[in-house]
Amino acid sequence: VSSNSDGSSKEAFRQAVVNTLERRLFYIPSFKIYRGVAGLYDYGPPGCAVKSNVLAFWRQHFVLEENMLEVDCPCVTPEIVLKASGHVDKFTDLMVKDEKTGTCYRADHLLKDYCKGKLEKDLTLSPEKAAEFKHVVSVLDDLSSEELGAKLKEYDIRSPDTGNQLSDPYPFNLMFQTSIGPSGLLPGYMRPETAQGIFVNFKDLYYYNGNKLPFAAAQIGQAFRNEISPRQGLLRVREFTLAEIEHFVDPEDKSHPKFVDVAKLEFLMFPREEQLAGKSAKTMILGQAVSKGTINNETLGYFIGRVYLFLTLLGIDKDRLRFRQHLPNEMAHYAADCWDAEIECSYGWIECVGIADRSAYDLRAHSEKSGVPLVAHEKFSEPREVEKLVITPSKKELGLAFKGNQRMVVEALEAMSEKEALEMKKALEDKGEVDFQVCTLGKSVVIKKNMVSISMERKKEHQRVFTPSVIEPSFGIGRIIYCLFEHSFYTRPSKSEDEQLNVFRFPPLVAPIKCTVFPLIKSQQFDEVAKLIAKSLTAAGISHIIDVTGTSIGKRYARTDELGVPFAITVDSTTSVTIRERDSKEQIRVSIDEVASAVKEVTDGQSTWADVLWRYPTHVTTHAADE
Amino acid sequence: VSSNSDGSSKEAFRQAVVNTLERRLFYIPSFKIYRGVAGLYDYGPPGCAVKSNVLAFWRQHFVLEENMLEVDCPCVTPEIVLKASGHVDKFTDLMVKDEKTGTCYRADHLLKDYCKGKLEKDLTLSPEKAAEFKHVVSVLDDLSSEELGAKLKEYDIRSPDTGNQLSDPYPFNLMFQTSIGPSGLLPGYMRPETAQGIFVNFKDLYYYNGNKLPFAAAQIGQAFRNEISPRQGLLRVREFTLAEIEHFVDPEDKSHPKFVDVAKLEFLMFPREEQLAGKSAKTMILGQAVSKGTINNETLGYFIGRVYLFLTLLGIDKDRLRFRQHLPNEMAHYAADCWDAEIECSYGWIECVGIADRSAYDLRAHSEKSGVPLVAHEKFSEPREVEKLVITPSKKELGLAFKGNQRMVVEALEAMSEKEALEMKKALEDKGEVDFQVCTLGKSVVIKKNMVSISMERKKEHQRVFTPSVIEPSFGIGRIIYCLFEHSFYTRPSKSEDEQLNVFRFPPLVAPIKCTVFPLIKSQQFDEVAKLIAKSLTAAGISHIIDVTGTSIGKRYARTDELGVPFAITVDSTTSVTIRERDSKEQIRVSIDEVASAVKEVTDGQSTWADVLWRYPTHVTTHAADE
Repeated sequence: VSSNSDGSSKEAFRQAVVNTLERRLFYIPSFKIYRGVAGLYDYGPPGCAVKSNVLAFWRQHFVLEENMLEVDCPCVTPEIVLKASGHVDKFTDLMVKDEKTGTCYRADHLLKDYCKGKLEKDLTLSPEKAAEFKHVVSVLDDLSSEELGAKLKEYDIRSPDTGNQLSDPYPFNLMFQTSIGPSGLLPGYMRPETAQGIFVNFKDLYYYNGNKLPFAAAQIGQAFRNEISPRQGLLRVREFTLAEIEHFVDPEDKSHPKFVDVAKLEFLMFPREEQLAGKSAKTMILGQAVSKGTINNETLGYFIGRVYLFLTLLGIDKDRLRFRQHLPNEMAHYAADCWDAEIECSYGWIECVGIADRSAYDLRAHSEKSGVPLVAHEKFSEPREVEKLVITPSKKELGLAFKGNQRMVVEALEAMSEKEALEMKKALEDKGEVDFQVCTLGKSVVIKKNMVSISMERKKEHQRVFTPSVIEPSFGIGRIIYCLFEHSFYTRPSKSEDEQLNVFRFPPLVAPIKCTVFPLIKSQQFDEVAKLIAKSLTAAGISHIIDVTGTSIGKRYARTDELGVPFAITVDSTTSVTIRERDSKEQIRVSIDEVASAVKEVTDGQSTWADVLWRYPTHVTTHAADE
Repeated sequence: VSSNSDGSSKEAFRQAVVNTLERRLFYIPSFKIYRGVAGLYDYGPPGCAVKSNVLAFWRQHFVLEENMLEVDCPCVTPEIVLKASGHVDKFTDLMVKDEKTGTCYRADHLLKDYCKGKLEKDLTLSPEKAAEFKHVVSVLDDLSSEELGAKLKEYDIRSPDTGNQLSDPYPFNLMFQTSIGPSGLLPGYMRPETAQGIFVNFKDLYYYNGNKLPFAAAQIGQAFRNEISPRQGLLRVREFTLAEIEHFVDPEDKSHPKFVDVAKLEFLMFPREEQLAGKSAKTMILGQAVSKGTINNETLGYFIGRVYLFLTLLGIDKDRLRFRQHLPNEMAHYAADCWDAEIECSYGWIECVGIADRSAYDLRAHSEKSGVPLVAHEKFSEPREVEKLVITPSKKELGLAFKGNQRMVVEALEAMSEKEALEMKKALEDKGEVDFQVCTLGKSVVIKKNMVSISMERKKEHQRVFTPSVIEPSFGIGRIIYCLFEHSFYTRPSKSEDEQLNVFRFPPLVAPIKCTVFPLIKSQQFDEVAKLIAKSLTAAGISHIIDVTGTSIGKRYARTDELGVPFAITVDSTTSVTIRERDSKEQIRVSIDEVASAVKEVTDGQSTWADVLWRYPTHVTTHAADE
């Protein structure tokens, strides 16, 4: 029951936030006059301003600070690129169809809803059944199409809207497909992420950087996922803004010169071990997490620290922010380590930033598909004698043994790491044959001694040629903004206590409008002063609104608190004015020629409100009620 | 001959610019390692930085200055919206296909190329034929599918690549089509412009603005046009960034309170009369152009002035910028007036910004399609007795006369302006019948006296309800940037005179990187000073690069001149450094703790180089050759 009432209070809180957001046009369901389209939202004026502030700060905090190479690639992407990246074949969700109406559902959602419903509402549930449902929910992401289908059949799950029978699950590709040019012969997709645009440019970017590693490239842009049935309102949408960084690094040296700058940060982490042991997230010092090996390397750790700073500076509550390590089953086989910045909101813990060490996977995939080597070079000052692994598959023997599969086996043998190869060499010498997993075949084959020769040979080398590893922090900007809205929202009673007033406590950095200008009473003199101040604010580049309606000052404050405007200038004389801070409601008195620079100081982040409070006389309100 | 040599020097100039742009990664053909896709380009690091500077300045100059309501809508758009806007039916180009290979061409391009080729190269051309070809080129945009087809046949124009026969021309819709959701039942398109997202939100935005006119909404975002065969490199692409403003205004009052701020501007305008008379553009004073009626109204004139300021502040050469008025045949029938900001570059005069008074067309179209009234209200302080036009079509008589076309005729009658209706009333009284143009039928019909009653009636009204007019400045950001590149590019001899050095004279506002930091010679001490300065620049938010390679200082200057970096800091002591300005090559000496603030001053636009040159000691170079 407690979890239910907790759930409903979360629902009520979310409803209050979303109502305010929609009423004040932070968001608008897109194409509303045409009854909208699920999963598409507009940012209205204040939402759009918050978004562009978040992106400007992202550029300052990441691109400028690290001298990243920012690029801007098209959304329309030819099929071959997304074939190489694996999206054409694997970027799918399992779908079922109502057999009569044709309505589509995500198969995993139906199963999850069923299990959760049983767990929450069925009071007669046996402990065994409860354990089973819990287990199903926990392994949901790992179920194959067949396993999912079997479960849906076993529980007799029907179409939620009609009760009709459902089809078997089948994969639906989540990319929006289109066709490039008039011929209809060049299929294309709207990109599902911005990263591929960077990978395909690696060679040029490496050259631009003076053929030196490490360096990072970055991209901000739209990405598209044609969700089967979007849920969770603003968190799961069909078009969204991503900000992605691809940091290219020598796989043999993932240290980071600026790691010391973040090593002392202390925040909530949720390593793999804690998750598997059923424990909860714990506060750790970043430097220790890296030195203990909890986080794989310094560069990954550096970005985790920078992401923590970015999010908390935006106004994300640090107690509702954790970095969760991926479990082995969540992580792609090539990934070295992966952490998600998760933010807690009314929907639970939401993945908002993924920070992954993707090793050399992406560059290798595009090298292979395009035939253009995407590699880095390290020139030796003098030639080095190196021991080098040489793997020579015997095509003849392999051909006899595996026929049509020969090529896949050869490639898999050649792709072995040194460690794997040496283990195979030993096993072949000891036992004469060995089981060998060929990923591209999806099965093991038996390799015999005469099929491959493995040896270490000494060679002189003038340079090292290698595929860089990539460390990828990837930011879902819309999700971050939505969580920021929830974390910034609070209500306070009005002076008359008869209603609750909504406030967004945005830091000046993200506030959609930095200040308002109100003449205290309707008066031509005050209006003119207000216009003069507005002009000086525009010149200083400070967004503001001027409200000369005769409404009570308390109501005007309440209106702009609800937009999260941090400062309000009230014109109550022709020589000086008051500035009120949104959350404390404290006021200071500032002369008219200083007001723009004072506001600029606190909105640019050069000073805090506490700083200016100290410098200017405080003002105790004598006029008609502030709220 | 002169036009030909002029043409080839333009070609050579363009080649020099484009080579530099591609070599320094301002642009990269997208998906280059996969041999690219025509009409898709990436912005590499310096290009991306220029673009984000241009957009930031656009926001400052338009959105902030005018308190516009900025919105951000999805690119994926359901069909109904683009059906209402007319794009589904009319956003087409005429295409022909090579009958054997299937390769597609734009029919008008082939005809134009043929005529231009004849005019330029056929020395035996008779004056009559020459006049004919010139005429064809001038009316190209007005030719119907049939007329175009007839001309292609008449001149026996073949496929340019194979010489094969061509198909008849047929319309190809230029929108990228896709499907929203998994059912395949909801067709969608990638938006061809951002404007529709604003129109469909009119009602909410009007409410947000306190139900007051005028107000402007703005949007920056990607737009898509699936060109048949993209040409003109960076000017005609399949995906591009638009920045659009929709300024909503009472059609009865198009005055603008800030028009006085721009009225004295004087620049090149090319009114309709001058074009029709075969004259050229002339310098006019904006205030006079509006008062004389050359420009339809103050609000349109205000935006023309603001666009002029925007473009010239970015660095567009005012002598190669003109505002050309649309000819009657270029303008949509509903438009009140339309001017293009055209910039001259090596491709000729290119339309970069369109500034159109679109009257009430767009809001009416969406009102009709959605059934949601998109109107504004003017409440009267007391009820007014008004004379009101009442048009009552007789559906019975019209039905008998026009059968299936009855609805179109009724709608056209009801949509008549007061002037048209009164003229018709008079004509019907005088002659009993009248010819009436029905746009939706594409022909005239004969209206008789019994088919419609037209009268003026007196009524009491409490408010005026009307559809606002919209004035739309629409910016092709990529085209502006490309023209800016051409206008900013120049070469100068190196000191040794053996080669030409490339320079982009970007103003600090748009320069991709604001300054560089060079230690004069390889030295640990200087390197440390350089790093200290770099840190202070980052803190001040100034983008920079630090170059500690041992290359000669002249070469390092040349390298960054080619990126358009306006200022170079050379570290030649541990107490003070020099700052060099790119174009004049003048240098000043500034102490180390002042250097960041000095650079900030000149890059933020608070001071000019001339200002700081006056304040700091100039430095005469004594060290190894600056170029």
